[in-house]
Amino acid sequence: MSEINDMSRRDLIELGVAGAAVAMASPAAMAQSRAGSSDGDKPVGFAIVGLGKLSQGQLLPGLTRTKNAKLTGLVSGDPAKAARLAVQYNVPAKSVYSYETYDRIIRDPAIEVVYIVLPNNMHAEYTIRALKAGKHVLCEKPMATTVADSEAMIAAAKAADRKLMIAYRCHYEPTNLAAMRRIRSGGIGKPRTVWTDMSRQANFSDPSDAWRVSKEMSGTGALADMGVYGINAARYLLNEEPIEVRAWASTDRSDPRFKEVEDLVSWQFRFPSGAIANGSTAFNSNGGMGFQVAGEKGRVVADPGCLYGGNRLTFGAPNGKTVEITEIDQFAREMDWMADVVRGRAPMVAPGEEGLQDMRLIDAIMQSIARDGATIKTDWGYKRAVDPAAVVDV
Amino acid sequence: MSEINDMSRRDLIELGVAGAAVAMASPAAMAQSRAGSSDGDKPVGFAIVGLGKLSQGQLLPGLTRTKNAKLTGLVSGDPAKAARLAVQYNVPAKSVYSYETYDRIIRDPAIEVVYIVLPNNMHAEYTIRALKAGKHVLCEKPMATTVADSEAMIAAAKAADRKLMIAYRCHYEPTNLAAMRRIRSGGIGKPRTVWTDMSRQANFSDPSDAWRVSKEMSGTGALADMGVYGINAARYLLNEEPIEVRAWASTDRSDPRFKEVEDLVSWQFRFPSGAIANGSTAFNSNGGMGFQVAGEKGRVVADPGCLYGGNRLTFGAPNGKTVEITEIDQFAREMDWMADVVRGRAPMVAPGEEGLQDMRLIDAIMQSIARDGATIKTDWGYKRAVDPAAVVDV
Repeated sequence: MSEINDMSRRDLIELGVAGAAVAMASPAAMAQSRAGSSDGDKPVGFAIVGLGKLSQGQLLPGLTRTKNAKLTGLVSGDPAKAARLAVQYNVPAKSVYSYETYDRIIRDPAIEVVYIVLPNNMHAEYTIRALKAGKHVLCEKPMATTVADSEAMIAAAKAADRKLMIAYRCHYEPTNLAAMRRIRSGGIGKPRTVWTDMSRQANFSDPSDAWRVSKEMSGTGALADMGVYGINAARYLLNEEPIEVRAWASTDRSDPRFKEVEDLVSWQFRFPSGAIANGSTAFNSNGGMGFQVAGEKGRVVADPGCLYGGNRLTFGAPNGKTVEITEIDQFAREMDWMADVVRGRAPMVAPGEEGLQDMRLIDAIMQSIARDGATIKTDWGYKRAVDPAAVVDV
Repeated sequence: MSEINDMSRRDLIELGVAGAAVAMASPAAMAQSRAGSSDGDKPVGFAIVGLGKLSQGQLLPGLTRTKNAKLTGLVSGDPAKAARLAVQYNVPAKSVYSYETYDRIIRDPAIEVVYIVLPNNMHAEYTIRALKAGKHVLCEKPMATTVADSEAMIAAAKAADRKLMIAYRCHYEPTNLAAMRRIRSGGIGKPRTVWTDMSRQANFSDPSDAWRVSKEMSGTGALADMGVYGINAARYLLNEEPIEVRAWASTDRSDPRFKEVEDLVSWQFRFPSGAIANGSTAFNSNGGMGFQVAGEKGRVVADPGCLYGGNRLTFGAPNGKTVEITEIDQFAREMDWMADVVRGRAPMVAPGEEGLQDMRLIDAIMQSIARDGATIKTDWGYKRAVDPAAVVDV
């Protein structure tokens, strides 16, 4: 554990942040608390549904580094790829499923959690089918392409009495957690402004990426793909919810990538505290994945802030000092967290309702764009159940 | 001259930017072109009007480093301070004026330029009086507190056939010029987004600063004081003019600093190219003085970007490389530029019209705030006469 996190834990305890002392208990203390649970010491079995770049590059390798989670199933539409990865990751052939045989996981007790890593428009269907099969679900963000689908997923989890968590990896990422803790502990004073830019020059020549600019499959293009990081970040950095939203889009319709979806979206959130957040996202801009939060006493800059690795955190303004962060495998940490949720050892950091809130804000952004930037009220009373900064130990 | 500027000059010439080859001629070539002017080799005499922090800390020291500009007069309401500075900077007692005796500068041929460094609401009166006395004027930004005053200043300069230039120091600052040239030369591809935050935790306990939060004296508080840097920067970074503007303010009215003016102002500009700029400014936020421009191929980050010194420029995204910039005295360069303007050797980089454009945009921002963030059309057809990147050599 890095020094900054030690410091933050102390700060949080001193400040009396609710639950911090308990929630930030060490893995050793967590292990002790397992006593009495019959499954307590058994790793939680995960099936990965969708074997694209994220699964192959991050999640399957991540599952070789988890402590409480273990790969026990694969689901893919490509039998050859599935068979190859099953051999590579030691998954028995009987636990390799196609989309046609997917519902048979109900009879596979080795699979306790289904991790949905499919194009956005398939999240709802495959989540609901997994829940009906009695499995817990970890689902990639954005949780769906519509608010209605998101609500159906939450209802299905309730009906099945299973856990549904949305995979916001930055909730388990040390740079983001250190930024949140810096803010919660009063290190920048009252936060005033947040700025996020989540943009990259995206090439969709790989067919497995083409869905990201399909309106049907992605929902909202760059906004769904990367903008959701900025939307979620503004909320977890400030630990409050926007009451007003507005947005402009700027899209080159002659670019074949943007026949169906917007490219650049720039939005503003107004928060109850008076803080104002500006976010932007685009597939045709190389802005990176970064954020700044400026407060009355100082600021936090993460540039980059939401990459898989190599994030860089700076405190102070201007010309602040770079903070030493010990990197971890954020994907492994996230899957371990889900395993702890299933075993009843940890709260869900991002339950379905948390994913729904981002979906409703995406919807408000799109409404504003359709109405030439009109202000959309978003004070519908949502309140985050769990602050990642108060519970996630890295 | 730093390597980056050599490179930029070459790029500009290759790209055929109008006037670049001529305008970026070396000081030696400039000196040659003076032949034939009777006053050509005589330094231009400057009177500084208002002897506050900026004058004492930057402008009077800057005038000891100028090549073509020379301090020849002081104007102050504080006779003791004026007398002390006159001795320190070798100004004859006869060229020290009070606000009552100010108009007598008409009979002081050693004063050719009057540099107005007064609270914003005094700019118009003292500029117009100087112009009527036959002097050229360099006036601090924002040029006034109202659009009407700005227009009156421009009319007075025309009537007197004298030069009126607004003191946008960043037009002469190497970090900003390198950023502009990087963008003009195509180094980041087509620009898509600009972000600026110009904010500081401001303490007005010094009585000489109190005017900055007086509505009458400042116009618009932080927006006038620091926001104008971000407004101007978005325009010179993109080299185009906003066609739509909107803004939100967030002000703690219980804070005694903000009885009359807004504190935090966050605005958005939409440009003809499709680029979108987000700017923020506040006296109660420690965000620094920085900007990012993201384009199709990369980005430019200046953080900080608009300080007197110590600015830091980064190219590339994310985790770009810091660019080596050779610092200069930007105030000395600006006053030398004004001297060259007076001698007919250089174009005005920021004539009164350039200051007026920012005043009209500030006015549009305030209109939008008054109308709860409504979009204000600003496509009134203004076009910058001179691009700093094409003419200013540092």
